[in-house]
Amino acid sequence: MKFTIQRDVFVQNIQHVSKAISSRATLPILTGIKIVAFDDGITLTGSDSDISIEAFIPAEDGDNSNVDIERPGAVVLQAKYFADIIKKLPESTVELTLNDQMVTKIRSGSSEFNLNGQDPDDFPRLPEVEEGSQFTLKTDLLKALIKQTAFAVSTAETRPILTGIHWGMESEKLMCTATDSHRLAMREAGVEESGDVEFTNVVIPGKSLTELSKILDDSEETVDVTVTDNQVLFKATNLLFLSRLLDGNYPATKNMIPSQSKTNIQVPAKQLMAAIERALLLSDGKNNVVNLKSLNENELEITSVTPEVGKVTESVSCDAFEGEELRISFNGKNIIDALRVIESQDVAIQFTGAMSPFIMRPADRDYMLHLFSPVRTY
Amino acid sequence: MKFTIQRDVFVQNIQHVSKAISSRATLPILTGIKIVAFDDGITLTGSDSDISIEAFIPAEDGDNSNVDIERPGAVVLQAKYFADIIKKLPESTVELTLNDQMVTKIRSGSSEFNLNGQDPDDFPRLPEVEEGSQFTLKTDLLKALIKQTAFAVSTAETRPILTGIHWGMESEKLMCTATDSHRLAMREAGVEESGDVEFTNVVIPGKSLTELSKILDDSEETVDVTVTDNQVLFKATNLLFLSRLLDGNYPATKNMIPSQSKTNIQVPAKQLMAAIERALLLSDGKNNVVNLKSLNENELEITSVTPEVGKVTESVSCDAFEGEELRISFNGKNIIDALRVIESQDVAIQFTGAMSPFIMRPADRDYMLHLFSPVRTY
Repeated sequence: MKFTIQRDVFVQNIQHVSKAISSRATLPILTGIKIVAFDDGITLTGSDSDISIEAFIPAEDGDNSNVDIERPGAVVLQAKYFADIIKKLPESTVELTLNDQMVTKIRSGSSEFNLNGQDPDDFPRLPEVEEGSQFTLKTDLLKALIKQTAFAVSTAETRPILTGIHWGMESEKLMCTATDSHRLAMREAGVEESGDVEFTNVVIPGKSLTELSKILDDSEETVDVTVTDNQVLFKATNLLFLSRLLDGNYPATKNMIPSQSKTNIQVPAKQLMAAIERALLLSDGKNNVVNLKSLNENELEITSVTPEVGKVTESVSCDAFEGEELRISFNGKNIIDALRVIESQDVAIQFTGAMSPFIMRPADRDYMLHLFSPVRTY
Repeated sequence: MKFTIQRDVFVQNIQHVSKAISSRATLPILTGIKIVAFDDGITLTGSDSDISIEAFIPAEDGDNSNVDIERPGAVVLQAKYFADIIKKLPESTVELTLNDQMVTKIRSGSSEFNLNGQDPDDFPRLPEVEEGSQFTLKTDLLKALIKQTAFAVSTAETRPILTGIHWGMESEKLMCTATDSHRLAMREAGVEESGDVEFTNVVIPGKSLTELSKILDDSEETVDVTVTDNQVLFKATNLLFLSRLLDGNYPATKNMIPSQSKTNIQVPAKQLMAAIERALLLSDGKNNVVNLKSLNENELEITSVTPEVGKVTESVSCDAFEGEELRISFNGKNIIDALRVIESQDVAIQFTGAMSPFIMRPADRDYMLHLFSPVRTY
């Protein structure tokens, strides 16, 4: 194997596949990046037990020449060292030469590294993706779906299924749901031309989707998604992203959403967020308890208290108020998390009493829903 | 006490005095900021056992009105909560009112905090600075002196005196020295008009000077320095910064500097730095050992190796080479630290053999000197 490659393109793709590599890999060879030089380009592969990422760097990309391949071949190099080395090399091009015993010479300007490589045949093959449900998503929509749900997954290992995001497809509509059992985020998206693709109980690890989101280039227009029984494949130009699915039954979240409400309010999102953020400064550190009370039809009061330090009282104007008087306590941080991904100016909140879960949505859209459990304060 | 203050000015000065406040304060009241409202402005004070900082916010500052003082008074408020609260308040002004039992009401727009304060009489008075050696430094020079020496202090508590920076003044020249016993940084500066001020064995905690440097505004022209037996006071416009001095005898560092050399080289600082940074990628993690060898009068070779991973060979061109052939090993990270604060294009290095300390200076200036111990590699 011998090739000369543009360093910036190399660095970017190494960073992409490195997202799949864990320093605590079960198989030692999985701390490495597999590099394969073909006649028409280079593939880089990184993998752990959950995620595999393969990036292809074409020799020619339009008018740009990325790689000049002198001799095809393959090697596995320690990701940790390799990524740092390529990033710090002095020139804009890098020459890689595979010598005997898998030692790989990396040259750039006045700098020469000789790294001990491993046999590429020992690197596990990517699982074959069998036939599955296929559809296409716009990249910006896919990134929005991830951003607007992934924050709500559970970080506790007690119920592993809740560390994933549930995807279901029905009638050309994709529904993404995440919950940690105290709050829930749902986001729906129309997927045109998905034809008769239907599936349910597809649970993708939240971490996989978060990593995917970091890699996806905003310039990519669409991503092809293939869902099988135990894995999901995302395919963008020159990039394959494969994740295992989580085993188990996801809770029936639709039943959790109250269909009626006793108090409906509409408030400006930014003011609500700023008021809760300030209230959190004096809420007890562990449960982030914030109290909300309706003063009248135009005004909400948000309070919190840490007895030894002091208390805070915030006033927020309502754009609309309908129904019963209100007095409820909740985890303020959960509300802030949801307000961060709601892009609308106003939010609508529907309460069903102090002890019942309540719903928050963007006031002008119905494709998104956030559900929160209240906190008992007595 | 009651006053209304511009929030941005308040935030900035709270941040300044907070630099003196440790969350592990020995006296509980020292986790607080003392706020005193006078007729002509507000002082804020923060203090721990090493550092005390007092900021004055004048009611009027040129054409700007900073504070509108309705009623003088004083209180101590928990720094941790107070700083965050003021930063997050909604409006550009803040009203503070001291009520009974030291409870302080903080109002801004629709937001109201009531914080439990403490009695300002319980806050320790700043130590009086007796008569001492006085001189004036330009602010940018003071910041340069700190930056170019503070990195070399010891972080180990085994020899506390080495956690400080030694200042000595003689014949209108201030000499600043820091060493952790493996490397040493020295910086000299002419201090005109310091008259007959002379002192030695003044050792200022490195941490004090680093914090001072963060606070000093680049717009300040000069800082007045007063050195006494056990403390040093830095006085800028509206700011007092007081630090205790370290007890003990600082080592006689002048004797450590070799007066002769066997090999003198001159190399471009940036190329040397980049080559050593790359060599560090494969040096063993703990001692950062990098090897240097003269190939000929025009070229140095820098190498390092981690047997199980690989090796690196860098070549650096010399601008000048004089004397014996050279082969030496050193802690590469220490050299990088020094190269970062040398602002010259080229550095001159004087070696006295593989087992002797060596000197690095900017090639075009003699006000700065860095000394390094070599590392035995056999």
